[in-house]
Amino acid sequence: MTMTPAVKAILDNYESDNPGVKANLARILMQGRLGGTGKLIILPVDQGFEHGPARSFAVNPDAYDPHYHYRLALDAGMSAYAAPLGMIEAGADSFAGQLPTILKVNSANSWATARDQAVTAGVDDALRLGCAAIGFTVYPGSEHFFELAEEIRELSAQAKSVGIATVIWSYPRGGELSKDGELALDVGAYAAHMAALLGAHIIKVKLPSDHIEQKDAKKAYEGTDWAKQSDRVRHVVQSCFNGRRIVVFSGGAAKGADAVYQDARDIRDGGGNGSIIGRNTFQRPRAEALAMLDKLVRIYKNEE
Amino acid sequence: MTMTPAVKAILDNYESDNPGVKANLARILMQGRLGGTGKLIILPVDQGFEHGPARSFAVNPDAYDPHYHYRLALDAGMSAYAAPLGMIEAGADSFAGQLPTILKVNSANSWATARDQAVTAGVDDALRLGCAAIGFTVYPGSEHFFELAEEIRELSAQAKSVGIATVIWSYPRGGELSKDGELALDVGAYAAHMAALLGAHIIKVKLPSDHIEQKDAKKAYEGTDWAKQSDRVRHVVQSCFNGRRIVVFSGGAAKGADAVYQDARDIRDGGGNGSIIGRNTFQRPRAEALAMLDKLVRIYKNEE
Amino acid sequence: MTMTPAVKAILDNYESDNPGVKANLARILMQGRLGGTGKLIILPVDQGFEHGPARSFAVNPDAYDPHYHYRLALDAGMSAYAAPLGMIEAGADSFAGQLPTILKVNSANSWATARDQAVTAGVDDALRLGCAAIGFTVYPGSEHFFELAEEIRELSAQAKSVGIATVIWSYPRGGELSKDGELALDVGAYAAHMAALLGAHIIKVKLPSDHIEQKDAKKAYEGTDWAKQSDRVRHVVQSCFNGRRIVVFSGGAAKGADAVYQDARDIRDGGGNGSIIGRNTFQRPRAEALAMLDKLVRIYKNEE
Amino acid sequence: MTMTPAVKAILDNYESDNPGVKANLARILMQGRLGGTGKLIILPVDQGFEHGPARSFAVNPDAYDPHYHYRLALDAGMSAYAAPLGMIEAGADSFAGQLPTILKVNSANSWATARDQAVTAGVDDALRLGCAAIGFTVYPGSEHFFELAEEIRELSAQAKSVGIATVIWSYPRGGELSKDGELALDVGAYAAHMAALLGAHIIKVKLPSDHIEQKDAKKAYEGTDWAKQSDRVRHVVQSCFNGRRIVVFSGGAAKGADAVYQDARDIRDGGGNGSIIGRNTFQRPRAEALAMLDKLVRIYKNEE
Amino acid sequence: MTMTPAVKAILDNYESDNPGVKANLARILMQGRLGGTGKLIILPVDQGFEHGPARSFAVNPDAYDPHYHYRLALDAGMSAYAAPLGMIEAGADSFAGQLPTILKVNSANSWATARDQAVTAGVDDALRLGCAAIGFTVYPGSEHFFELAEEIRELSAQAKSVGIATVIWSYPRGGELSKDGELALDVGAYAAHMAALLGAHIIKVKLPSDHIEQKDAKKAYEGTDWAKQSDRVRHVVQSCFNGRRIVVFSGGAAKGADAVYQDARDIRDGGGNGSIIGRNTFQRPRAEALAMLDKLVRIYKNEE
Repeated sequence: MTMTPAVKAILDNYESDNPGVKANLARILMQGRLGGTGKLIILPVDQGFEHGPARSFAVNPDAYDPHYHYRLALDAGMSAYAAPLGMIEAGADSFAGQLPTILKVNSANSWATARDQAVTAGVDDALRLGCAAIGFTVYPGSEHFFELAEEIRELSAQAKSVGIATVIWSYPRGGELSKDGELALDVGAYAAHMAALLGAHIIKVKLPSDHIEQKDAKKAYEGTDWAKQSDRVRHVVQSCFNGRRIVVFSGGAAKGADAVYQDARDIRDGGGNGSIIGRNTFQRPRAEALAMLDKLVRIYKNEE
Repeated sequence: MTMTPAVKAILDNYESDNPGVKANLARILMQGRLGGTGKLIILPVDQGFEHGPARSFAVNPDAYDPHYHYRLALDAGMSAYAAPLGMIEAGADSFAGQLPTILKVNSANSWATARDQAVTAGVDDALRLGCAAIGFTVYPGSEHFFELAEEIRELSAQAKSVGIATVIWSYPRGGELSKDGELALDVGAYAAHMAALLGAHIIKVKLPSDHIEQKDAKKAYEGTDWAKQSDRVRHVVQSCFNGRRIVVFSGGAAKGADAVYQDARDIRDGGGNGSIIGRNTFQRPRAEALAMLDKLVRIYKNEE
Repeated sequence: MTMTPAVKAILDNYESDNPGVKANLARILMQGRLGGTGKLIILPVDQGFEHGPARSFAVNPDAYDPHYHYRLALDAGMSAYAAPLGMIEAGADSFAGQLPTILKVNSANSWATARDQAVTAGVDDALRLGCAAIGFTVYPGSEHFFELAEEIRELSAQAKSVGIATVIWSYPRGGELSKDGELALDVGAYAAHMAALLGAHIIKVKLPSDHIEQKDAKKAYEGTDWAKQSDRVRHVVQSCFNGRRIVVFSGGAAKGADAVYQDARDIRDGGGNGSIIGRNTFQRPRAEALAMLDKLVRIYKNEE
Repeated sequence: MTMTPAVKAILDNYESDNPGVKANLARILMQGRLGGTGKLIILPVDQGFEHGPARSFAVNPDAYDPHYHYRLALDAGMSAYAAPLGMIEAGADSFAGQLPTILKVNSANSWATARDQAVTAGVDDALRLGCAAIGFTVYPGSEHFFELAEEIRELSAQAKSVGIATVIWSYPRGGELSKDGELALDVGAYAAHMAALLGAHIIKVKLPSDHIEQKDAKKAYEGTDWAKQSDRVRHVVQSCFNGRRIVVFSGGAAKGADAVYQDARDIRDGGGNGSIIGRNTFQRPRAEALAMLDKLVRIYKNEE
Repeated sequence: MTMTPAVKAILDNYESDNPGVKANLARILMQGRLGGTGKLIILPVDQGFEHGPARSFAVNPDAYDPHYHYRLALDAGMSAYAAPLGMIEAGADSFAGQLPTILKVNSANSWATARDQAVTAGVDDALRLGCAAIGFTVYPGSEHFFELAEEIRELSAQAKSVGIATVIWSYPRGGELSKDGELALDVGAYAAHMAALLGAHIIKVKLPSDHIEQKDAKKAYEGTDWAKQSDRVRHVVQSCFNGRRIVVFSGGAAKGADAVYQDARDIRDGGGNGSIIGRNTFQRPRAEALAMLDKLVRIYKNEE
């Protein structure tokens, strides 16, 4: 497929990366129904680790099968599919070359009490499974953040050297952050910026609220009206090297379809690159999920 | 031996594995009296580490000799024999090529207070001893789970690269789990799913009770009757990638023969792949053990 | 460019270093408007990690773009530009060969409670990004100082072996030091000396106050009048192997321009090698910043 | 020297070991006055680490010289000499090829409060010093046991790969064990069994008392009379793979000669392979020590 | 220079060492005015790390310059110069081949609260800087002793393999030792013995008092009069493999010249190999220091 100017413009921002990494970013940006637009939607399925199988899949039992998600991502024209080791392995051959995969290389679970994650896969796994990228979660604010930063620093350096891209999930959590603070605008922008500084190619954050958490940061946010979600998205994008890095936003817990669509419009209008949307799709019946994803695609294509 | 369609169908699910790993899984699935059926019974002897020699073997003193267990597994037509380093070394040459062995590479003991295990063997040992697989215990729920996950991630990646299969013993324990919770259905299914996500080829769990431990998971289990053990087995199998991974269930402490047989029938009827049964065999006189194993084989062959 | 005697004299002090390291030190010392004078001004932009993006850049939004800083350093005739991984990557190709870069390889952030930093980049990154040096912060006095010392010992040994120079930020902090003590003359001189002992090529410290913190050190400072800042600078320079190592001083928080100029004059008069100045430049409008840097250059050239 | 059937029978039990390891075990079993009998006496001198030089050697000052111990072991016709790095180095050339040495690769000391040891030598040292084996202490029951087990697992794997044998000192200590429990029969048998499971070629334990420590183990020991020391020795040997591993017993603190002789007779009568005896020899004058060792040799040869 | 019999006799005791290590020991033993006598004086300058620059050098400001110490050691005819990384680097070329250097590879500082040191240089540094030996401090008695022992075990093994000698500073400290106990005779002898067991070529300890600290050791010291310092030195030498290892004693804090001379006479008369003397020299004016060192040399040559 010939590269579009929109994708070329994005790739040009990754000026230190070798052709291997750029090719894998291009694979994601040229994939599916948003291919070539510079927008992307990623299907992530790591809830099995995070919440357990029944809480994740019992509502739609077909989703117990790893092939279900590969197929859903493919049929809906998604940009990539992200999952932990076992889930990727279970369909790696059946779907080889059909859609880019992101190997989630660290994971937590419902029983963990530390704000930390275990490294559960590596760059060698990503290579042997044909993945386009590794995915890694950091918890800015946590007392384990330094360890997490050092882990992704090593994994990302290794990945870059073999042409694999890095996606960082940056979720403020723990430490002295209040519960509201985890979603605060200043906190989310800071978390996104740290992911950029750590060398991420794609940054995944949550949609921030208009709360400002840090006393020291209040002055910097005063005098601007942060009521509109699209403005908050724009600030996060600005915090990612003024738009030089791809930023996608997560949809959070399953919620009403209209809210999902409004989020996407705000992401689009604020200059975000797209959505990473899991439970809101695979916890719905397949037909409903496909319809929702179709509408999201059209929103990002400015057709809705 | 020509591969049977039943075994071929199982192996096809391991679509990311190299021929070396598949050959070792095939060695286990084609071995002994259940060879070719897709069912398996594994003899594990790690009680020497866990409980000490006298508690394990005094009731049947022949069992102090490592050769006893190799011979028992062979004569009973078992699928594989699993044991720690020293036990495997002590018979590795005498029984070389006669039955697949699984090297248990981590171990705990009666005196340990942490919910953790020590790594006591490695993939290099498995190679030099001609083992078909490594075996590793994780304790989901324990404060040491992340470390255990990172250890098996490294060992398993190394094993896969040299054609050795991975068996994960997944035993929920510690943390905030109640004693009943360690055997709860939701907990057991979650533990089995985590083993699958960690990249296990064979998953070993305990037969779950009908208790539901996690408040957040209750909703997912409501409205279904979990009184039948075979239904609980089926849910665990479903949680292992909807049957794409081999799942075997352990028999627990020595108990009456009838209970052992009923467990096997429930495993079979629920779609489980088989049993891993230690104390219930080697703590009985050899003749009794052989009779019991004969009956278990016949149950799995649908002859009882 | 032909090397000047002033630079040659400095380089001769690095008598254990290979030609690669010396060439990179020379790149810095021969760069920009102070090139050849033996003086230097470095632009550091690591406030995104330390304080977050809005506190750092909202006052001058152009500074959200990493290219802004490369361009500012270049246009102002600075000696080098120092920043964390992502910031360097984002302009590494556009500005390749135009000015020396210092890769800041460890970082803290506003939410960290430990007096420690995470290693966020490595020597391999410095090589692939064409950096002249790595930068590393140690916290003398902190309970994490030994770990930090061991980290820079490994990174610096690796850097020296591939011809990359080492810059150490030495900031006394934590432990039993009082708040005033962190800026005390005896403490600052000790911190600078430790950086020299650790093998730094360039040492960055804060301008010390005339407070003496350590009871055991009071005797050594008695009988000298430490009221003049230039005398205190001279003592720090003396503590860095009697001037055999390059020492630069940081300007601290944004403050009035006159104070910045006075600091530079004191550094110059005390025999310091120059300034490392961040917030005082990029938090001003570009024109103001250029004017300020122009004046600083002229101070170091003895033109003001 | 032609191998005797007794030694050949022992070596045949090490069926997973390469010829290098077997040759080193043979060197020990064919050495000195017990050479060829299948029995052995080892002289260990690690009291300098454990108790300090004066407590160890002041009573017999010649013993401050490392050569004294090499010479004593040689002149008394011992099977091997075991000591820490410095002690072995100090005579490695003078006595090269004259008697097998065992390099003690971990050590504790009187001032340590943790039930742990430091690794103080490695397999590379054993190779360059021409040692036949490495020696390593584990403390079953200690909260550091898992670390110790992981250390010997790595050292032993490395040693086996280069043809060096492994001797494990297995001393129950710490945790919830009572003081009496450290010498209990069940505890000693369990500790010996764990050493065997960890892959030891030679297992060193203390002579156990008739105390049974573990509540869960009492049943397994009931109904047998454990009053005779030789029966307790036999149970320990049984716990080491039913006699498939060499087991030697330590003499403990210096005591009366008659007690030493009785211990040896009990070891012999219970099927143990021999003694490891330090303070009872080198803390006596050389002539007395030689006489005692002569008598011990004769006991093991069934001449007394 | 032709080797003298005295030096040859010492080198013969290092019977496990390769010619590279022996050559470096010979370089030290053949250097300067004591060259060939078997005695040695080492100039150590690590007070910059331990006490800071002003407390170390303000009394004699020329000593801020690293060349000062190289020059002092050379002009006074010392046997070797020991210092941390930066200090050695700063004169490595100017003084290359003129006197043996000992790279101090770990260091503490006044602000550290743990009885531990940071590794601040490595064997590779020693090689590239042309050093004859590495120097390392252990703190017997400290809760960090095991870590320190494991660090020097690795560094020393690496050093021996490339022909570099090992000097261990053995300073009892921390744990349950009383303040008096740190200098006790039994404690010092034990500390020296542990350094020997760890494989040191040269052992550096403090001159011990006649206090006996350990209750368990009292018996071994009873009945001997320890009032004479030379007798205490002799016991320490005896504890270092009966004189098979080089032992040097430190002079401690700056003190009166007569006390320094008496110490040297006692070291000589007790069979010690020499002094390691820092503050007592570089904190005096150069002329005084040279005079003092001249007198010390003559003492060791039995001329005073």
